[in-house]
Amino acid sequence: MNAGGGSGIRVLGIAGSLRAASFNRAALREAVTLAPPGMAIETWDIAPLGVFNPDVEAKGAPDAVRDLWARVKAADALLFVTPEYNFSIPGGLKNAIDWMSRDPAKPFLGKPVAIMGASGGPLGTARAQYQLRQACVFLDMHPVNKPEVFIGNAPSKFDAQGKLTDETTRGFIRQLLEALAAWTLRISPKAS
Amino acid sequence: MNAGGGSGIRVLGIAGSLRAASFNRAALREAVTLAPPGMAIETWDIAPLGVFNPDVEAKGAPDAVRDLWARVKAADALLFVTPEYNFSIPGGLKNAIDWMSRDPAKPFLGKPVAIMGASGGPLGTARAQYQLRQACVFLDMHPVNKPEVFIGNAPSKFDAQGKLTDETTRGFIRQLLEALAAWTLRISPKAS
Amino acid sequence: MNAGGGSGIRVLGIAGSLRAASFNRAALREAVTLAPPGMAIETWDIAPLGVFNPDVEAKGAPDAVRDLWARVKAADALLFVTPEYNFSIPGGLKNAIDWMSRDPAKPFLGKPVAIMGASGGPLGTARAQYQLRQACVFLDMHPVNKPEVFIGNAPSKFDAQGKLTDETTRGFIRQLLEALAAWTLRISPKAS
Amino acid sequence: MNAGGGSGIRVLGIAGSLRAASFNRAALREAVTLAPPGMAIETWDIAPLGVFNPDVEAKGAPDAVRDLWARVKAADALLFVTPEYNFSIPGGLKNAIDWMSRDPAKPFLGKPVAIMGASGGPLGTARAQYQLRQACVFLDMHPVNKPEVFIGNAPSKFDAQGKLTDETTRGFIRQLLEALAAWTLRISPKAS
Repeated sequence: MNAGGGSGIRVLGIAGSLRAASFNRAALREAVTLAPPGMAIETWDIAPLGVFNPDVEAKGAPDAVRDLWARVKAADALLFVTPEYNFSIPGGLKNAIDWMSRDPAKPFLGKPVAIMGASGGPLGTARAQYQLRQACVFLDMHPVNKPEVFIGNAPSKFDAQGKLTDETTRGFIRQLLEALAAWTLRISPKAS
Repeated sequence: MNAGGGSGIRVLGIAGSLRAASFNRAALREAVTLAPPGMAIETWDIAPLGVFNPDVEAKGAPDAVRDLWARVKAADALLFVTPEYNFSIPGGLKNAIDWMSRDPAKPFLGKPVAIMGASGGPLGTARAQYQLRQACVFLDMHPVNKPEVFIGNAPSKFDAQGKLTDETTRGFIRQLLEALAAWTLRISPKAS
Repeated sequence: MNAGGGSGIRVLGIAGSLRAASFNRAALREAVTLAPPGMAIETWDIAPLGVFNPDVEAKGAPDAVRDLWARVKAADALLFVTPEYNFSIPGGLKNAIDWMSRDPAKPFLGKPVAIMGASGGPLGTARAQYQLRQACVFLDMHPVNKPEVFIGNAPSKFDAQGKLTDETTRGFIRQLLEALAAWTLRISPKAS
Repeated sequence: MNAGGGSGIRVLGIAGSLRAASFNRAALREAVTLAPPGMAIETWDIAPLGVFNPDVEAKGAPDAVRDLWARVKAADALLFVTPEYNFSIPGGLKNAIDWMSRDPAKPFLGKPVAIMGASGGPLGTARAQYQLRQACVFLDMHPVNKPEVFIGNAPSKFDAQGKLTDETTRGFIRQLLEALAAWTLRISPKAS
């Protein structure tokens, strides 16, 4: 069903941290391994993106931005793994979304989305996730409602190598990806 | 009363767009001229900031970040002029706040804040402004409640040179700055 | 496709004001007349509901609550027409949603939803509408993203008899209902 | 410093649940006992309030509403203890705030506020609390920023008699009330 042909669901996964040892990057790597049969998660690194500047854009979108646009277009669904900075979406992740939104072809419209995130505190990036959901209204994207994956107290759930060792959390991620698969099929245009 | 001495209120004003002809940059320039007697607004440009990266920070905060920290420290109050991208704070402005929040000396704690913004649509960046207010809870900053300055339908209120020509809007900005002055005095530590 | 049989889409419409001359009640009446072919909107009045009290519920849900549950169950989709009180959902409408959520059969799960609202100010209940969208995450309901119908400056758009005379607004409501119809069909379980 | 004379801080505490055995009512009772020297917390029960109806109001505010107005007027600060229903403020508590906001004398303007809440889940009513903070912008009330008191997993922190037995939580409530006392003094009009 995906744009690239084939029968599986292609997901583009984006983690919202630039830190090499980020729990959110680690959670995204874990998600890649937890995808249900028929789903393939490709990850994309926000590091090459500069801060969105309409004057730069006017001279032509930078290569990294064009690459992001192509990946979004090729994906059946998106997966955002968000840290929370200052009770909000990290500027770097929001910036990636701002660049994404500038694709004149608007391939994001109508796309299914899953959201998860990890933080040191008990709320597991909930505040950032609700702001991401609000951005999805503008972008006409459709986030999965349940399960919400709030990975709180993250340091206790990953080992020193950044491996997610908490089985309960692994189960939630698996459920989220299964829900994303079902939701993607459910909202895809019906064959006539 | 400000950290730098003297009797006036020093405000650091930050606009959240990198676009040269931005309505929000124009609104900030206007605010500088509308400050009440005893208030001086210094502006700071977010353009030199790279996207926040804890690994970069670990090697020492970049010069632009140290400059931002020094300006925040020297200010009695902050003024954010925010665009709205995708129903949320622009990534670039949020990124500036993320860098600001990393100052180990935390000079932002307890600081009074004013928020305004301009957009082409009718809501005048209201959605972004409420998210900024939520960030202020984390940063223990205190935004002015009223008036809220939502400059909607911005193209009709600025002339071709980026001059704010709408008198009603100019009045709201003036009121906001007066409210910021009063609020700054009200919440400043009382002389014993 | 609806639970009651037949081929149309049955929508339950709920306005969030108790005021007889409410703009939101008037907007809901208007929506009834603007429904596209194949959609029928039934309205339900929140007036008979007392404030949600778990101790009352424990003795058996009141008749008005049971009636609400039956209507939700019979509907293919929901339409909320919300005022905004104090930058938030009116207590009375939120209370209706709280009671609705207590149906042990949970017929609301997975239901498509449309949201609109009218207010005297320029924002047209946007703040209340985003909070309603957040409630829908919990309830696993799926709001239509676009168009958002924010009826600002309401007194200028209705006549003295509460008739919505503003053609632009009538067009937006029509579009919203058409989007709800399409969304309802899109997310309904596919025939095997 | 309070309106009623005397030297202490008078706080009006309102819990957002009608359930007799509510954790939030229990948390408010606990707060009464944890108030710092010089602070007295009076509680007010929302049970007698009907759902806000402008048509009823037009005939004269009901007695319970007038009582609420008088209590708000007499208080130096407010304390809201909020459950979270459907990721939002409970309708009953929001309704109390809606009625409160209708006092023509607007005694709430400029009032300091503290917010806390208890829930069974891990987030401890955070979502409802941010919505309450947004309502405070409209009402020009000033919530304490820190500490945020999110009493998650409430059943493990109260005993069978509704006594808050978790010492960490008791400490947070104590800190919140101390912060409210300091904030109330800080923002009160300065003696000339």
